[in-house]
Amino acid sequence: WQVIDDHAVLKLQRQFSFNNFVQAMTFSNQVGDLAEQHGHHPAILTEWGKVTVTWWTHKIKGLHNNDFVMAAKTDELAG
Amino acid sequence: WQVIDDHAVLKLQRQFSFNNFVQAMTFSNQVGDLAEQHGHHPAILTEWGKVTVTWWTHKIKGLHNNDFVMAAKTDELAG
Repeated sequence: WQVIDDHAVLKLQRQFSFNNFVQAMTFSNQVGDLAEQHGHHPAILTEWGKVTVTWWTHKIKGLHNNDFVMAAKTDELAG
Repeated sequence: WQVIDDHAVLKLQRQFSFNNFVQAMTFSNQVGDLAEQHGHHPAILTEWGKVTVTWWTHKIKGLHNNDFVMAAKTDELAG
């Protein structure tokens, strides 16, 4: 995970690689399900063979402890 | 759809709005299915209540007629 500065809003971002589009889309859905379970939603960029997940907390326009927890849970999904 | 210039690569981009995250994710999957059917894959950015779809042709690093066709098909999915 990288901490990125998106117009002064700090965010946690990581790219995950896959062998094709369908595998990428499947992972995006798993991240989406995780987000729904926790009521905290990232930005999920799905492309052929890769998914970029970005976590941050809109309310505070930056990073909260919960974002790091969600990033760790995202890693668990990736196995 | 807007034509955007992404580091000198022209792309077609449009944002679609939804009432929640699940509806956005559902639309992203519909766009993903469309992409698989046609063997041409966009970038799909899924966020709470919105999906941003970006079409371009990697091989020519720009826009091909097919991208405009796929953009129109994406609109049809949005209804």
